[in-house]
Formats: sequence, structure tokens, C-alpha cells
Amino acid sequence: MLIESYRDTALEFVVHCAMKRQNVRTLSLVVCTFTYLLIGAAVFDSLESQTEAKRWEFLQAVKNNFVKKYNAGPQWKFAGAFYFATVVLAMIGYGHSTPTTVAGKLFTMCYAMVGIPLGLVMFQSIGERLNKFASVIIRRAKRASGARCTDATEMNLMLATGMLSSIIITTGAAVFSRYEGWSYFDSFYYCFVTLTTIGFGDYVALQNDQALTNKPGYVALSLVFILFGLAVVAASINLLVLRFMTMQAEDAKRDEQDAQN
Amino acid sequence: MLIESYRDTALEFVVHCAMKRQNVRTLSLVVCTFTYLLIGAAVFDSLESQTEAKRWEFLQAVKNNFVKKYNAGPQWKFAGAFYFATVVLAMIGYGHSTPTTVAGKLFTMCYAMVGIPLGLVMFQSIGERLNKFASVIIRRAKRASGARCTDATEMNLMLATGMLSSIIITTGAAVFSRYEGWSYFDSFYYCFVTLTTIGFGDYVALQNDQALTNKPGYVALSLVFILFGLAVVAASINLLVLRFMTMQAEDAKRDEQDAQN
Ligand SMILES: [K+]
Ligand SMILES: [K+]
Repeated sequence: MLIESYRDTALEFVVHCAMKRQNVRTLSLVVCTFTYLLIGAAVFDSLESQTEAKRWEFLQAVKNNFVKKYNAGPQWKFAGAFYFATVVLAMIGYGHSTPTTVAGKLFTMCYAMVGIPLGLVMFQSIGERLNKFASVIIRRAKRASGARCTDATEMNLMLATGMLSSIIITTGAAVFSRYEGWSYFDSFYYCFVTLTTIGFGDYVALQNDQALTNKPGYVALSLVFILFGLAVVAASINLLVLRFMTMQAEDAKRDEQDAQN
Repeated sequence: MLIESYRDTALEFVVHCAMKRQNVRTLSLVVCTFTYLLIGAAVFDSLESQTEAKRWEFLQAVKNNFVKKYNAGPQWKFAGAFYFATVVLAMIGYGHSTPTTVAGKLFTMCYAMVGIPLGLVMFQSIGERLNKFASVIIRRAKRASGARCTDATEMNLMLATGMLSSIIITTGAAVFSRYEGWSYFDSFYYCFVTLTTIGFGDYVALQNDQALTNKPGYVALSLVFILFGLAVVAASINLLVLRFMTMQAEDAKRDEQDAQN
């Protein structure tokens, strides 16, 4: 019994490694996307920094009187431009900083045209992998607990991704609440609005204490949170859309058969 | 030859009508989504209108001095709340109006949790139907022109949806440019940012001349533009994601075969 269980685990491991081709594609998509983000950040930086610098001088005067909260520091220096590129690629679009030059707007559009499909396929791909991973874990757990049916059902998977999403969102809320000085509820609301890619922009991370220039660690953490969080959400949505698309395809097949008879 | 062509057309028509089951599902999704939008609009209206009214009095004083452009009228009266619900469901999230009460934020989250999957599946479903429709048209056109291969290839379909997207975006830009007083370029940028669901909120339609209360026709036109435009964009993305998912599934199958051998 124990030997059998070990053999199964070994077999599963072989199958898991044999899926390399998909893993390679996912990885190369991740690399592509990050390269693309870097390029975008560089271009946004060069296009928008100057105009911003001019406006910055003017704003300095207004700032101290009216908009005390607006102490984010330059939005188009590299870290900020990278942040902006991420916000465009993930379709969050906070609007905390937007292009004001014609060139900047044009580039944003071209950048989004390529970046959004790229991002979508990447999140989709990571999501699919996460689901696969979750189903392996679930199957193993079921076998260990001696359940009769050791298959990972769709419902199991949905529960698993749902739980993971909750963990990410509650942890993220705690972190942002601490760093941004928001209440836990507001921070949770921010995380939710971000990971659903709604991105109202009423709460935007990295806008206090010149965080973009002074806190590189926190900036990295925030970006990882956004990108990993979106992948997990994509995993949940993947399940839903996949379920719907197979339903649709089955219907089409059945309807064609009906038409032929 | 002519009779054959007619027979084929007739057969196609039969197949087309036999797809009823999918059409019914698409239609019921549309109805569900609209009902959901209406309910959401009503709740947002009741939750946020009062707080807004109080803030409105305070803002009246500031407004005339500083924010001359902010003449949108009440954002949470029904038309505005419906607009907000659409913006949440479609994940655009302009941020031109956001919930400020705790109840409003909570409801926004719950609303989004159900509304976003619903909206995604709806757009997906409409997109799939549009693709089907386009492939029928393409096949018919190819047959009429006497082409040897009468199948609608993936490339044909992508070109078709791309063209339709361009038409929608250029027409939309012209309309918004006229009604909102934006330059054609800015209006194009607005349409692009909206239909990709980035929704920065630097340009937001229906915010001038109390359009939400005074111009119901224009409000309806804008919402139809957003929802139909998103469906067309979904059709393009549908093709891309479907292409990727089949690739992924084929890979998985091949890898499993490799592992078995
Ligand atoms: K947004
Ligand atoms: K958005």
C-alpha cells in the first residue's frame, strides 16, 4: 500500500516534469512580458519626464497651499514609469499619472495594443499552471486521506483558487495598510479594486513619502503583489471561462448533430 | 452552379438557426447582465446620493473658484449610478465617481464579485457569436467571389474583427469629439482607453453640461458604444485566447503521450 502510493507519486512527478513544454512557454511569456514592461518604462520615462518637470515647478506653488497629499514625487522617473507600464499592461489604469503629451498618448496606445494581449495570455497561462498545480496537490491530499474518488473536481479547484485569492487579498491588505497608513478596510478595498483590474484610482499605492524613489523594496513588493495576485485571479477566471467555453463548444457540437439528423 | 450555391446558403441558414441553444444562452446572459446593472444602479443611487448631496453643498463653494470644469451634475442619481455600475462591471473604473461610504465600498466589492464574471462571460459569449457570424459572412463572400478555399481562416477572422474594432473606435471618436468638445485625437485616445478597459479617467464622457440628467439620448448612446465596443474587443481577444488555450491543450496531450511511451 505504501509502496504503491510512492510509485504513484513518482509517476506523477514524471508526468509533471514532462509538461515542460507548457512550463517553458509560460516562463518565456513571463520573460517577454517583463522585457516589454522594462522597454515601456524606459520610453514613458523619456517621453513624459520633461513635460512633468516643467509642470512640477508650477505645481510646487499650488501644492503647498491646496494639495498637501500630493507628495508622490516624480511619476515618470524609472520606477514610476515601470509602475505606469504595469498599470497599463494589467488594464488597471489608476489614472494617478497619465500621459499629457501627444507622443505620450500615442505611445500609450501602441504599448497597450501589444501589451494587453501579452499580459492576458501570460496571466491566463500562469493561471492555467496554478490550476494544474492545485489539482495535483488536491489529488495527493485526497489519496493520502484515503478518499474513494481521488480526482480533483472542478468544485475542489474553484474552492482552492478562491481560498488562495482570499489569502493574497487579506495579506496584501495588511501590508498596504501598514505602509500607506490606510485603515484595514480601505486597504482591503484597494487590493480588491486593484486585483479585479477596476483600478478606480481613489486609493493608489506608492504615492506617499516619495516611495517610488526612496523605498525600492516596497515598490518591488507592491509590483509582485499586483502581478502574482492578478495571476491567481486569472486562475479563478480561467476556470470559469473555460467551463463556459467547453459548454458552448459542446452545445455547438450537439446542435450540428441535430441539424445533420 | 447557381442552384448549388443557393442550396448551400439554405443549408447554412438551417445550421445557423439550429444554433439556437447558444443564442438563447447569450441572450439570457445579456438580460441577466442588464438586470444586474439596473439593480446595482438602484443600490448605488440609494447608498451614495445622500453623502454626495452633503459634499455637494461644500463643493459648490470650492467649485466656482478652483474646479471650473467639474460641472457634471450629481453622479449618483440614477443615470449616473447606472453609468457607475457599467464602469464597474466592465472593469473600466474611471474613478470619476467612487463610493465614499463604508456601505458603498462594501457593496461595490460584492457587486463586482458577481458582476465581473457575469460581464466577462457575457462579452465572451457575444464575442464568440460575432466571430461565428463573421465566419459565415466571410465564407459566403469567398464562395461568391469563386475562391478555391471557401473556409474562413483564423487570419481572415482576426482581420475582420480588427476592421470592425477600427470602425467602432473611429466612429466613436467622432461622436465623443463633437459632444464633449475634445480634439479628435483626444477623443480617439478616450475611446481606446475605454474599450481596452484601462479607463484612466483623465477623459470621461458624460461629465459636461450635466449630460447625465439633461441628455438621456447621449447617455444611452455612450453606454451602447461602451458595451458593444467591449463585445467586439472581446471577440478579438476571444480568438487570441482561444488560439492560445487550444495550443496549451494540444501540448498537454502531446506531453502525456510522450510520458506514456
Ligand atoms: K481604471
Ligand atoms: K481598469
